[in-house]
Amino acid sequence: MIKVAILGGSGYTALELIKILLRHPRVRIEAVTSRQEGTPLIAEQHPSLTARLDLRMEPFDADKLVARGVQCVFGCLPHGVSMDCLPSLLSRGIRVIDLSADYRLRDPNTYAQWYGEEHDDLAHLAQAVYGLPEIYGDEIDGAQLVANPGCYPQTAILGLAPLVAGKYIDLKSIIIDAKSAVSGAGRTPKLTTHFPECNESVTAYGVGNHRHTPEIEQVLSDIAGEPVHVLFTPHLIPMDRGILSTIYATPHRAFTEENLLELYAEYYRNAPFVRVVKHLPATKDTAHTNYLDIAVRPVRGRIIVLAAEDNLVRGASGVAVQNFNRMFGFEEGQALR
Amino acid sequence: MIKVAILGGSGYTALELIKILLRHPRVRIEAVTSRQEGTPLIAEQHPSLTARLDLRMEPFDADKLVARGVQCVFGCLPHGVSMDCLPSLLSRGIRVIDLSADYRLRDPNTYAQWYGEEHDDLAHLAQAVYGLPEIYGDEIDGAQLVANPGCYPQTAILGLAPLVAGKYIDLKSIIIDAKSAVSGAGRTPKLTTHFPECNESVTAYGVGNHRHTPEIEQVLSDIAGEPVHVLFTPHLIPMDRGILSTIYATPHRAFTEENLLELYAEYYRNAPFVRVVKHLPATKDTAHTNYLDIAVRPVRGRIIVLAAEDNLVRGASGVAVQNFNRMFGFEEGQALR
Amino acid sequence: MIKVAILGGSGYTALELIKILLRHPRVRIEAVTSRQEGTPLIAEQHPSLTARLDLRMEPFDADKLVARGVQCVFGCLPHGVSMDCLPSLLSRGIRVIDLSADYRLRDPNTYAQWYGEEHDDLAHLAQAVYGLPEIYGDEIDGAQLVANPGCYPQTAILGLAPLVAGKYIDLKSIIIDAKSAVSGAGRTPKLTTHFPECNESVTAYGVGNHRHTPEIEQVLSDIAGEPVHVLFTPHLIPMDRGILSTIYATPHRAFTEENLLELYAEYYRNAPFVRVVKHLPATKDTAHTNYLDIAVRPVRGRIIVLAAEDNLVRGASGVAVQNFNRMFGFEEGQALR
Amino acid sequence: MIKVAILGGSGYTALELIKILLRHPRVRIEAVTSRQEGTPLIAEQHPSLTARLDLRMEPFDADKLVARGVQCVFGCLPHGVSMDCLPSLLSRGIRVIDLSADYRLRDPNTYAQWYGEEHDDLAHLAQAVYGLPEIYGDEIDGAQLVANPGCYPQTAILGLAPLVAGKYIDLKSIIIDAKSAVSGAGRTPKLTTHFPECNESVTAYGVGNHRHTPEIEQVLSDIAGEPVHVLFTPHLIPMDRGILSTIYATPHRAFTEENLLELYAEYYRNAPFVRVVKHLPATKDTAHTNYLDIAVRPVRGRIIVLAAEDNLVRGASGVAVQNFNRMFGFEEGQALR
Repeated sequence: MIKVAILGGSGYTALELIKILLRHPRVRIEAVTSRQEGTPLIAEQHPSLTARLDLRMEPFDADKLVARGVQCVFGCLPHGVSMDCLPSLLSRGIRVIDLSADYRLRDPNTYAQWYGEEHDDLAHLAQAVYGLPEIYGDEIDGAQLVANPGCYPQTAILGLAPLVAGKYIDLKSIIIDAKSAVSGAGRTPKLTTHFPECNESVTAYGVGNHRHTPEIEQVLSDIAGEPVHVLFTPHLIPMDRGILSTIYATPHRAFTEENLLELYAEYYRNAPFVRVVKHLPATKDTAHTNYLDIAVRPVRGRIIVLAAEDNLVRGASGVAVQNFNRMFGFEEGQALR
Repeated sequence: MIKVAILGGSGYTALELIKILLRHPRVRIEAVTSRQEGTPLIAEQHPSLTARLDLRMEPFDADKLVARGVQCVFGCLPHGVSMDCLPSLLSRGIRVIDLSADYRLRDPNTYAQWYGEEHDDLAHLAQAVYGLPEIYGDEIDGAQLVANPGCYPQTAILGLAPLVAGKYIDLKSIIIDAKSAVSGAGRTPKLTTHFPECNESVTAYGVGNHRHTPEIEQVLSDIAGEPVHVLFTPHLIPMDRGILSTIYATPHRAFTEENLLELYAEYYRNAPFVRVVKHLPATKDTAHTNYLDIAVRPVRGRIIVLAAEDNLVRGASGVAVQNFNRMFGFEEGQALR
Repeated sequence: MIKVAILGGSGYTALELIKILLRHPRVRIEAVTSRQEGTPLIAEQHPSLTARLDLRMEPFDADKLVARGVQCVFGCLPHGVSMDCLPSLLSRGIRVIDLSADYRLRDPNTYAQWYGEEHDDLAHLAQAVYGLPEIYGDEIDGAQLVANPGCYPQTAILGLAPLVAGKYIDLKSIIIDAKSAVSGAGRTPKLTTHFPECNESVTAYGVGNHRHTPEIEQVLSDIAGEPVHVLFTPHLIPMDRGILSTIYATPHRAFTEENLLELYAEYYRNAPFVRVVKHLPATKDTAHTNYLDIAVRPVRGRIIVLAAEDNLVRGASGVAVQNFNRMFGFEEGQALR
Repeated sequence: MIKVAILGGSGYTALELIKILLRHPRVRIEAVTSRQEGTPLIAEQHPSLTARLDLRMEPFDADKLVARGVQCVFGCLPHGVSMDCLPSLLSRGIRVIDLSADYRLRDPNTYAQWYGEEHDDLAHLAQAVYGLPEIYGDEIDGAQLVANPGCYPQTAILGLAPLVAGKYIDLKSIIIDAKSAVSGAGRTPKLTTHFPECNESVTAYGVGNHRHTPEIEQVLSDIAGEPVHVLFTPHLIPMDRGILSTIYATPHRAFTEENLLELYAEYYRNAPFVRVVKHLPATKDTAHTNYLDIAVRPVRGRIIVLAAEDNLVRGASGVAVQNFNRMFGFEEGQALR
């Protein structure tokens, strides 16, 4: 039994993570921390956990977590806060899966540029592994610190990886038009996520400056072995969960749909949670699962890739558990089916 | 041309009111006030008004409104704030339609009990007319101060009026189970109206203590000529606009559906915006209109009334314009069809 | 390992059932039947099952199911069809959990009256057990044929059982105002469930004649030991899943909220899937779980009970698995947490 | 007073058209036809029209319409049916605004290729004017037959027109990623528009073969004076109404956002229903209006255009009335504000 702690328990990714971990036969949730006042019952914050997890939220205290035998910590803190808390755990030998953005970008200058503050934990940044199992699986297995990937980047990266790896497309031609559910914006009430504002409406946001852009580019550049730049446009869709990314790229040569499906099927042969499908994927097909569905088609001289996932499961807490399973030697899909 | 001003322009009822008044051939919107900092263009607050209303929001100033010839003011302020601002206008002879709750309850003790503060404008309270045209039409015509009715109360009162007026039901038996869209909760972001919280969910709220209860009881008591008490339970429904109230009462004698439909049709013979229907009304049938649809049926020894409306139009800004039309001698449905 | 078959695999309850059973460590889904043409892959009918269940849908054939060692059958067929298919399995000794309405009503005359056709399997009807574990748990354990309860009735029955069992309320005073998600209407496209018709709308339906009425009355009468009649009004809410029933009854004496909560907590002490809560339950708290949340409060001389569930899990396929677990001696919550 | 008739009154565009025309001071709706059995009251088909339009639907009969003085007909029939009915009216001198696709594509071979049947009214096809007032305004004024534009094409064409007219972009680089509400799929129930299928989901459809493609290309080619080909990908969004098109193109030279906004503002100087905005437009800003909102920005070497509209008003029935106003010499925005 692995004792785990969750830092930052009041949001949606923490809630989803708890629900998944409650199904994991080898995990015990030892602590859930919160920066809120007091030590409320977790069921007060998340009524859906009533009778399922009888814990109180507690302030973060690295010593206490170590003393209680916690071996793995899931960080669900905001960026900036995460790199303040995690070093004290990492230095005590605890393994960490960080769901914030703090350890995703290898270059601290890129971090400073996109997140507006200096990175202040360069030591651990240097050893962090980007937690996308289909790309960095082997490194994840032995990592102490895994930077869990962003929700959008997973659809973009996995949607493009086979084409980029094989150099089949013009690397300057990539456009990612992504559609996300509202839970991706977090649990803090804002006017843009107020029901009567975003219901019955669709809008783009973060045009040209969304922070997931450098994350997508870093990994695609790794895969390509040369710099890749993308145009990424996220949109807000009136639904609870789900992301669909529609990806456009110009191929160097003509492909049939069969060619493309074979290429993708082969690339993801050993990836239990990537489903290459012939039909047009709906986000609903992946809802509440860790699957990422991909369709790929040649259309009028371009290639269109459609990649769908549940932004809270596959896009955050599900892949975090997938990483956890790899790190601790469990079957990759434990608690995820 | 009547010059009007709208106090408190940042919320949903003000927006809806502006859209209706822009269609009114005899109205000019002279000013829209706001308690926010600065004088932003109204289109910044409400992008849907871009190119439709070229005004800046301004701080409230009674003298200025009088000087600019404003003859009628619509109050879209929160309760409590309303009774602080309106006396300065009323004393200058301006006619007021107040969409807050401040002048709805005749008895200041009832106000203090349900709203948690003393009423501090008893003089005007005494002369206010409750703005439900189907019940108090004649008084509205000549009123200086109209207390525009609450959204829920209109469905409950108009749904029950014919039965209560004719003493056909046990006045102790009334249960009102109401279902409302989220816009009824206003435009200030809160966790309960955060999209991922209230979407895909339904819940009751304010059980036994919703502030619309005394308002419903006051008017039904007027109609009955004796005290009426009701059980009123509101629910939050994941949609933008609409209220459906399902009303239960025990009749003193047996009715056929035909009896009931005739009774209602006769009662609302001269009410252009009440539609007595045979089918089960959907809120969508009334969306973006000033109509209130009522069906009434005898079922297993009780009478069930179903009353549907658009909470922002009929439930607030539409009926406000209906009142305005009566007060200024225009055709009752002007700008409302 | 218990081999099970699912009859009628194309709808939502079958899909939900498959997802739950795939998590059950002691179950193997041997067959899924369909009345459609051909033998399509189940993933063609339900894309969400891609890579999760590699089966083809097949025509129903009782002999084949027996020959392949199927021990338990879940019936997801429409009423009427169910009582045509199931006798051939029951007579071969297979245990059956029937999710249709065919074996729920003990009195065949009541069935004929509400479903418009004669019951043609009186022999098995006589031995069927109503599958509500919190009420008929012991009988379910040894049953060959379990009539899985309707979605609405579970909220109404469990919401009222402690009050009815203790004779604390006037049995003539019960009103059940229920709000259901659209998936409750099944998967066959109809105008009333066409997205632009039911989205952004709420409406009552089946007023006074919904088929779940006699089912509620039969069980409440069992509990009361005398005939109980209820007024049941269902409503359609624009969401995928969830039911909230708001229940009104007149108590014989005064209760405090504490009295009521204690009464309910005691009554459901051994029911792992009923959560008696102090807050007002939202359907979202129960979404995708087998929990049924109940709040109960005294309000203005009446008692209001609020009961929330996921209509597809607790309301259908989850409780079916709960019944299955009891019938086959597994822990009651297996695959349901 | 112009007497008009609406052919094919049972769908959403007809309903929207009726609501708009009821506000038109110079229009009388003389007849609404339907291919259904009998002559039902229109309020039976559209409950929202109860007490608003007291007409019965009737079978189509060109002679009768002429005899009753109908001067203008709005065709809301399916493609194929439209070109069967309209010639009999056109030959009698009646002016027609056809909301189907039958007269939109100038080249009958293109029609046959995309719609799968031969065009059988070549005579009138040759004289039809494409009803996009911002592009073909002068021709619309005197036209007898106006082919009302498709919903998607309006966002694509008006979003690109200033760039294409000025030859500022690579005409081979155009990608249109469009997001549409479900009402765009019509009122006939289908599995893909069944509430529990499309709610809480987003998916692409018609990838590479949507019939609005040739329509977009025809008009952009007109504007460019040379052939234009586009990549058009529509998506289904869980909402009632609204389209947002996100358009990508590669410019021949660098632009600032100010350059682009000026270019667009100038191009649409005289277009009362196109709003060039600086903020990112939400479909909700245009809901229930005839406005089409456009933002345009240079992003990472490309130009992104965002164009939002209400698919039923601006995208169909609103622009139809705008065309009608031009054809009959009324102010262009009559009944549309």
